[in-house]
Amino acid sequence: MVVNRRILLKRRPKGMPTPEDFEFAEAPMPDPGPGEVLVRNRFLSLDPYMRGLMDAGKSYLTPLELGQVMDGATIADVVASNDAGFAAGDTVWAPGRWQDYAVCKPPPARPPLRKVDTKLAPATAWLGPMGLPGWTAYVGLLDLGEPRSGQTIVVSSAAGAVGALVGQLAKLKGLRTVGIAGGPEKCAYAVEALGYDECIDYKAANFRDALRKACPDGIDIDFENVGGDVLEAVWPLLNMNARVVVSGLMAQYNLTKPHPGPDLTWLLKQRVTIRGFIITDHAARIPQAIGEMARWLSEGKIKTYEDITVGLERAPEAFIGMLQGKNFGKTIVQVA
Amino acid sequence: MVVNRRILLKRRPKGMPTPEDFEFAEAPMPDPGPGEVLVRNRFLSLDPYMRGLMDAGKSYLTPLELGQVMDGATIADVVASNDAGFAAGDTVWAPGRWQDYAVCKPPPARPPLRKVDTKLAPATAWLGPMGLPGWTAYVGLLDLGEPRSGQTIVVSSAAGAVGALVGQLAKLKGLRTVGIAGGPEKCAYAVEALGYDECIDYKAANFRDALRKACPDGIDIDFENVGGDVLEAVWPLLNMNARVVVSGLMAQYNLTKPHPGPDLTWLLKQRVTIRGFIITDHAARIPQAIGEMARWLSEGKIKTYEDITVGLERAPEAFIGMLQGKNFGKTIVQVA
Repeated sequence: MVVNRRILLKRRPKGMPTPEDFEFAEAPMPDPGPGEVLVRNRFLSLDPYMRGLMDAGKSYLTPLELGQVMDGATIADVVASNDAGFAAGDTVWAPGRWQDYAVCKPPPARPPLRKVDTKLAPATAWLGPMGLPGWTAYVGLLDLGEPRSGQTIVVSSAAGAVGALVGQLAKLKGLRTVGIAGGPEKCAYAVEALGYDECIDYKAANFRDALRKACPDGIDIDFENVGGDVLEAVWPLLNMNARVVVSGLMAQYNLTKPHPGPDLTWLLKQRVTIRGFIITDHAARIPQAIGEMARWLSEGKIKTYEDITVGLERAPEAFIGMLQGKNFGKTIVQVA
Repeated sequence: MVVNRRILLKRRPKGMPTPEDFEFAEAPMPDPGPGEVLVRNRFLSLDPYMRGLMDAGKSYLTPLELGQVMDGATIADVVASNDAGFAAGDTVWAPGRWQDYAVCKPPPARPPLRKVDTKLAPATAWLGPMGLPGWTAYVGLLDLGEPRSGQTIVVSSAAGAVGALVGQLAKLKGLRTVGIAGGPEKCAYAVEALGYDECIDYKAANFRDALRKACPDGIDIDFENVGGDVLEAVWPLLNMNARVVVSGLMAQYNLTKPHPGPDLTWLLKQRVTIRGFIITDHAARIPQAIGEMARWLSEGKIKTYEDITVGLERAPEAFIGMLQGKNFGKTIVQVA
């Protein structure tokens, strides 16, 4: 019997998840049914949205049941296929979950299995700039942020999977880019590796002052991945007609009480637009995002950084570390 | 000497204004200089934004100095003109302020004196559906609210100058219209006179329950004139992709501490867009708003209600009453 190692949701976390919220389990490798495809996961993407899936209650995605395999996107190899569109040996993007093997459905299932072209970009890039984080940065900044050359953008979680790409895209579009990240190492990485004009440490005592000094002309776009106190510091610096694109609220996912929102008197005075945004609503824009990202990657205009943990059994540890902001670059688990 | 009666800002209100914050004064009727126009105010518009002008601090308009005449739009008659575009006897919209006589400048001064056509709509309508409240309702609902037939809109301050028009426009566009107003008389007026499908009393103990029952399919558009607790009740009922158009925050203007804003976790989950909006940013849309409003008025599709107080000296009392929600329809002072 071929073993399928799996990580299950054992209990719902209170606040920040702990290793005890997960369970390591083994099951037989599944068989693909008619029209289905069996894949072997090579790389698993870990993303902040997964924290939301662990809670009961209304999320933008259906919550996981206790005992279910943790959800997640993977880059995988096709092992066996009962669908004419896929053949053993194909590299695919799959809703493969935190496990070795997954049975997946081709389109029109949602999310569908998709072949990826590893000549266009390396396998792991399809979990980064060529995948969800890349599409999120592309659509969130270019469509919703309305970037204009010479304006100032602030990106929270500046060194995270999405933030790293937003900062680089904004620089490409001629904006002054100010990152916000936790700790001096992260900030140095954001400036030196990712090319931010400045990066401000939200853990430092002088955070608000430092942010104000880094934005002498105010803030025109806030690409918000964090919320909470970070958004509070950004808020009074917003310029007239500023756009706040809320792509994530990392600081608020683990709260047991809601964090108070921003003062709407200022929103009205400054004609601010705040927009909550989930990339899966913008599927029509994804082909163009993939095409442009591939070009920018090949031209060296966008760089990609990955934080790879080896071994499926270490996925909970890598996930918790990411939620605590310990990762540099896109968090990926090399499954095998 | 012809006397010019005037109402001045005497001191900055703490919270809700009181009569002692205003001063009644007399001055000689002014003379128009070269290129200027002398007008005699007939009708003065009282609007919530004026509360903001009474504070120091950053507003979207320049605050008044102590001792200045209170700001405000009027419908006036031209008394004497040193500009070829205006002649004695013309009826004009003027930045005439709280006084009998004003010296005004023609375009390109901002805001400019403008002739109004009292054949197209009666004089006072140019302070209502044909004026700022009408343009605000038109642009705020039709451009920013993205109304779709069959959807549900909630309008706070439903019986106010702007709200009354938003409700009627939304009904014209085929929406289910739910007003929010203070007290059973206001609510009855909103339904019977203004044609709302329902109107909920925010002062009633069961306000939140009643609002939920009035919106069985949730809320797609919130045309927000009030903020504070009213917005808090609306917030959890917002549907996916809901639009919140913040046109005013009446409940927050008189606060000494900011009211906490709405929970952004819900904004992200529901992909809500909140947009602060000031009509003067949308000048290009005003001619079309005037044209369509005139047609709807003449066809009886939009009705206009006015709450007219006679006598300039009673303007402070009428203004405070409006801020307390005592008016039914557009608050206007007949100056003479």
